[in-house]
Amino acid sequence: MTYLDKIQKPSDIKNFSIEQLQILSDEIRQAILHRSIAYGGHVASNLSVVELTIALHYVFNSPHDKIVFDCSHQCYTHKLLTGRCKGFIFPEYYDSVAGYMNPDESEHDLFEIGHTSTSLSLVSGLVIGRELKHENENIIAIIGDGSLGGGQALEGLNFIGGEIKSNCIVIINDNEFSIAENHGGIYENLKLLRSTNGEAECNFFRAMGFDYYYVPEGNKIAPLIEIFQKIKDIDHPVVIHVHTTKGKGYGAAETDPEKWHYYSPALEDIIKEEYYAEITRNVLRKELAVKKDLVYIAAATPALLPVSMGFSLQEREKMGMNFQDVGIAEEHAVAMASAIAKQGCKPVFSVLATFLQRSFDQLLQDLCINNNPVLLLVWNSGVYGLNDKTHIGHFDIQELAHIPNLLYLVPSCYEEYMMMLQYGLSETKHPIAIRIPSNGVYHAKRSININFDMLEYEIVNQGEEVAIIALGAMFQLGEDIIRLYHKKTGKQLTLINPRFASDVDSVTLEKIKENHKLVVTLEDGIINGGWGQLIASYYGTSDIKVKNYGLSKQFADRYSLYDILYENHLIDRLIVKDIIHLLGTNNKRNTTDDN
Amino acid sequence: MTYLDKIQKPSDIKNFSIEQLQILSDEIRQAILHRSIAYGGHVASNLSVVELTIALHYVFNSPHDKIVFDCSHQCYTHKLLTGRCKGFIFPEYYDSVAGYMNPDESEHDLFEIGHTSTSLSLVSGLVIGRELKHENENIIAIIGDGSLGGGQALEGLNFIGGEIKSNCIVIINDNEFSIAENHGGIYENLKLLRSTNGEAECNFFRAMGFDYYYVPEGNKIAPLIEIFQKIKDIDHPVVIHVHTTKGKGYGAAETDPEKWHYYSPALEDIIKEEYYAEITRNVLRKELAVKKDLVYIAAATPALLPVSMGFSLQEREKMGMNFQDVGIAEEHAVAMASAIAKQGCKPVFSVLATFLQRSFDQLLQDLCINNNPVLLLVWNSGVYGLNDKTHIGHFDIQELAHIPNLLYLVPSCYEEYMMMLQYGLSETKHPIAIRIPSNGVYHAKRSININFDMLEYEIVNQGEEVAIIALGAMFQLGEDIIRLYHKKTGKQLTLINPRFASDVDSVTLEKIKENHKLVVTLEDGIINGGWGQLIASYYGTSDIKVKNYGLSKQFADRYSLYDILYENHLIDRLIVKDIIHLLGTNNKRNTTDDN
Repeated sequence: MTYLDKIQKPSDIKNFSIEQLQILSDEIRQAILHRSIAYGGHVASNLSVVELTIALHYVFNSPHDKIVFDCSHQCYTHKLLTGRCKGFIFPEYYDSVAGYMNPDESEHDLFEIGHTSTSLSLVSGLVIGRELKHENENIIAIIGDGSLGGGQALEGLNFIGGEIKSNCIVIINDNEFSIAENHGGIYENLKLLRSTNGEAECNFFRAMGFDYYYVPEGNKIAPLIEIFQKIKDIDHPVVIHVHTTKGKGYGAAETDPEKWHYYSPALEDIIKEEYYAEITRNVLRKELAVKKDLVYIAAATPALLPVSMGFSLQEREKMGMNFQDVGIAEEHAVAMASAIAKQGCKPVFSVLATFLQRSFDQLLQDLCINNNPVLLLVWNSGVYGLNDKTHIGHFDIQELAHIPNLLYLVPSCYEEYMMMLQYGLSETKHPIAIRIPSNGVYHAKRSININFDMLEYEIVNQGEEVAIIALGAMFQLGEDIIRLYHKKTGKQLTLINPRFASDVDSVTLEKIKENHKLVVTLEDGIINGGWGQLIASYYGTSDIKVKNYGLSKQFADRYSLYDILYENHLIDRLIVKDIIHLLGTNNKRNTTDDN
Repeated sequence: MTYLDKIQKPSDIKNFSIEQLQILSDEIRQAILHRSIAYGGHVASNLSVVELTIALHYVFNSPHDKIVFDCSHQCYTHKLLTGRCKGFIFPEYYDSVAGYMNPDESEHDLFEIGHTSTSLSLVSGLVIGRELKHENENIIAIIGDGSLGGGQALEGLNFIGGEIKSNCIVIINDNEFSIAENHGGIYENLKLLRSTNGEAECNFFRAMGFDYYYVPEGNKIAPLIEIFQKIKDIDHPVVIHVHTTKGKGYGAAETDPEKWHYYSPALEDIIKEEYYAEITRNVLRKELAVKKDLVYIAAATPALLPVSMGFSLQEREKMGMNFQDVGIAEEHAVAMASAIAKQGCKPVFSVLATFLQRSFDQLLQDLCINNNPVLLLVWNSGVYGLNDKTHIGHFDIQELAHIPNLLYLVPSCYEEYMMMLQYGLSETKHPIAIRIPSNGVYHAKRSININFDMLEYEIVNQGEEVAIIALGAMFQLGEDIIRLYHKKTGKQLTLINPRFASDVDSVTLEKIKENHKLVVTLEDGIINGGWGQLIASYYGTSDIKVKNYGLSKQFADRYSLYDILYENHLIDRLIVKDIIHLLGTNNKRNTTDDN
C-alpha cells in the first residue's frame, strides 16, 4: 500500500498529483472490496463513487465544508479519507467502523443516516443554520442510486430549488441504477440528459430551480476536480449530475450491479437453508400462474435475498403488469396498492419493517380508512432482523398493530405462515399484514388449524398457574421456557400462540383466568406501545398478574443477538427464574394479605 | 334556482348549452358560499374549480370514468353534480354531506381522502387495475392548491411519468396558491409555464415523462370542455395545467385566499377567547426579537387560526430566514429541523397531529436517532381536535411517545404550557414535542413548578385507595371525578398530573403503591398502544389494579363530542360509578380469596 494507510485526514491528499490520486483510488477500491467480501457491505454503490469522493475531499475542506452522503451506503471512501482506514484495512478492526455515516466515529460525519432520500432535507437545514450564523462553508449533498425518487428527496429538491438563495451543492450520482434497475419519469430525464451531454432543454433539475452541470465521466478524477473547483463557493443551488459506473472496477459487480448492491457472506449461508423469502416467492409464482389480478409490489428491492423476494430481472419482465417496482417510494406503494385493491385486484406489497416506517400516514389514510384488501408482507421485523440502528425493525407493532381495520397476523411457524399467506391472498374485505418471522423457518410438531373467521389464540400446552403467550418469533423461546420450567419444577406451564398482534382474544384470556395467576407475554419488539401491553391493560382490573417481556425502549445498534436478548431477559433460564421469583412473591403476598 | 336543484346525476348536464352551464356555475358558487359561511368549509379552493368540475362531468362519464380529487378539499362541485345538492342547498341537510370525498355517500367517490398529495398514487393503482382487467375507462386526478409539493405526490408523478403507458389524466389546478402562498421550485416552474402560455422548453411535467397541455383561462367552461374532449381516451399519461383563480367569484376570498382557504363560523367564536395559538405566537414573537437563531417552520399553514400560529404574510416576510414554510412537506420539515438544530440553531416545527403522521420515519431516523434539539408543537391531538375521520389526531401518542430520545410533554394548563414552551425553546440536547391541549385554555388554581432535570408526576390531590392519573386535556375530567367522588362518598381520591407521555415516573408510581388499590388512567387518544398501557404494564406484577380509559380503537368520524366521550366512559359520573363498582368487586374478592 503506497498511500492509503498513511492518510489520517482529508487534507493529507491536498498536495497529491492526479496520478497519485489515481493510485489512491485503486487502493481504496481494493480495501472496499476486501472488506466487503470478507465482512459484508454495500459493494457496487461504494465502488461507483471512489473518484467522486476523492475529488470532493481534494477540493473542499471537510469538516468546515459539510458533506452529507444520502442513505450513506456510498460513504466508504469518505470514511477511508477521514481517519478510518484501519477499519477497512485490518480485519480485526472491521467491527470498529459502521456501514453508514456515524457522528460518533468522526467529526466528518454530521448525521447517522441509513434510510434513503433524506440528504436534501438535511442540507436544507444546514444551509439555513449557516445563513443565520452568517458563516460561509460549502454545503454538499451526494444523492443517487435510487434515492432520488423518494418523496422526501423530492420535497427537498423542491424546497432548495425554490427557497434557498445561497450556496447549496447537490451532487447526483447517476450510476444508472437504483438498488435494482431505475423506475420512474425522473430516470428517463437523467437518460435524456446523459444522451445529450447534459444539454437537453427539458431538464428536471432546472425545472426545479437549480443551476446544472453535467459530468459524463464520473469515474475520472481530473474532470471532477475541475467542476468542483469551478462551483466551490457558488452563491446559489446547483446540481452536478455525475455519470458513474455502478460496481466500477470489479467485474462481477459491473456485470450484475443489483446482486452486488449489498453483499454479505452471512447471506450465502442463509440461502443454503430453507428461508421465507424463497418459500414466499414459490407460493407467489404459483398464484401468479393462475390469478391474473395479483400484483406484486416492490420498493426498489425486488431481488435482494433473503430479505426480499428474489425475483430476477428476467422474471420481473415476464410478469409484466403483475410486477410493479415503485423505486424507493414506500408512501406511493401503500396508496397505490389500496387503489389496485379498490379495482378488485389483489396487491401484495413486500417491504422491510424499517422502510414501512415511511408509510405510517398512508397505512392510516389511503389504506385502512378505505379498508381495501391489500396484503402487506413485513420483513426483518423484531430483534432477529437487521441490527444497524438505522435499519432495526423494532417499531413495527407500534406502527401497525393499533391501526383500525388492519389485521396484523404473526405466524410462529412455517405451517401457520402458509395458511396466513393463502388467507391474505384470498381475502377480499380488509387489509392484512403478515409479520414474517425473522428467526428462521420452524416447522410445527403439532397439527395447525386456523379459523380466520373467528381468530383465536392457540393453546399449545395446557398447564396451570402461569401462561406464556409468545408472539411469532418468540414462540420457540416460549417452548424452551415450558420445557425448562417442567424440568426444574415438575410443573406444566400453559403455552399460548397468539397468532395476531392487532387485538387480544378476550375469550381465551377470560378462559385463562380460571386457573392461572400469572401471564407472561413475549415479543421481539419494543415493549412500550407494543402488543404485550394490550394484555397488561386487558387484565388491569383482574387478579391476573402480567409480566411483559420484549425490548427496552432504545435505538439498539449493531448488537450481538445474545447480548440484546440477555439484557432484556429474553432467555429461557432468566425468565424461568423470574417466574419462580414472581410466584414466590405472589404466594407470600397472599399469605400476608394486609401488606 | 334554475338548474342546480334538478341535477341528480352528472349525465343531467350533458345536453346543457355553454350558457346553461354558465348559469349552473353561478348557482353552484352561491350554494358553496352560503353553506360554507353558515356551516363552515373550504371556500376558496372549491370556488376555483367550479368550471373545471362542470367541464369534467360534461365530458367524462363518472362513475365509469374514475375521478379522484386530491385532498378532496375541492370536491364540492363534484358533490353538487353527483346527487348531493340537498346537502348544500338546505341547511337542515348540511350535516348529511361530509367535507371530503366519501364512498359511503356516492358511487362517484372512490376513496375517503383528507390528506393532500395522495391522488397520483391512487390513480396509479386504478390504472394498473384497469389494465389487468382489460377495461378502458378514463382515470383522472385533480391535484393542486399546495398538494403538488408533497413527497407522495412527487413519488406518484415520477411513477406515472415513468411506468404508466396508458390512459392517465392529471389535472393540475394551478390557482397560484397552496393553503398560503406557494413555496418551492416547482411553483417557479408553474409560474414560468403560465407566463409563456405553457410553451417554456423547461417543463417540470415533461421532464417527469408527461404529455402536457396548458389552459390559461381555467374559470371559463368552453376551453375546458374543448381540452377535455381532446384528451378523452388518450393512451398515455398527460398533464392538463389549468390556471384558475383561488376564491373565484367571491371578492373577499379572491383578495385574501389564504384567510378564506377554510372558513368556519365556530372559529370566529374561538378566537374571541384566549387560545393557545395566539398565546404561542406571542411567546415566539418575543423570542424572535432576541434570539436570532430561532427558526419557525410551518408546513403550508402559517396563518390558519386557531390550529396554527397566525403569522400574517407581512410578518412572515419580515421574519426572513427565521420563518420557513416548506409547503405540504412534513417529511422534509422534520429532517430539515433536525439539521438546523445540528447547526446550533433552534427550530420550532408547528404541525397538526394528523399531518405529523407523515413524518413517523423522519421522527425516528432524521430527528431522534440523531438526537438533535428540535421543538415540535403538536396541535389538534386527541378527542377535542378535528373530528373528520381523515383529520382526527387520535394516534399521536402511538406515533410519538415510544420513540427513544424524544420527550413528549403534555401540559394540562396554561401555566405548565408556558414553562414547557420556554424549556423546549432553550433545550440544547434532545428533541422535545409538546402536545398542546385541544380543549381550551385552563389556568391552574395551584402554583406550578416543574423540575425538567428530573421530570416527575405532580400529585395534585392526595387521597387514598384510588389514584386518577389524568393526561393533559383529560386533567379537567380528573378534577371533576375527584370532586364528584368526594360528594358521593365523602372520600378523597388521589389526582395526579403526569405531564409527559413518553415514559412513566416510577418513583411516583412506587409511592402510590403504599396506600392505593386502583389506578385509573385517563387519556384522550386511542388506548391501544397509548400512554395508559405503559402504566398497566408497569403495575402488571403488583397488587395495584389499573383501569385504562381513552378512546376505543376505531376511525371515529364527525362525532359529537358528548357522544364519543360517553361511549368511551370519559364522563365523570360514569367513571365514578365504575370506580365504586371496581372497588366493590375488589373488596368482595379479598374476602372470598379462594375464588
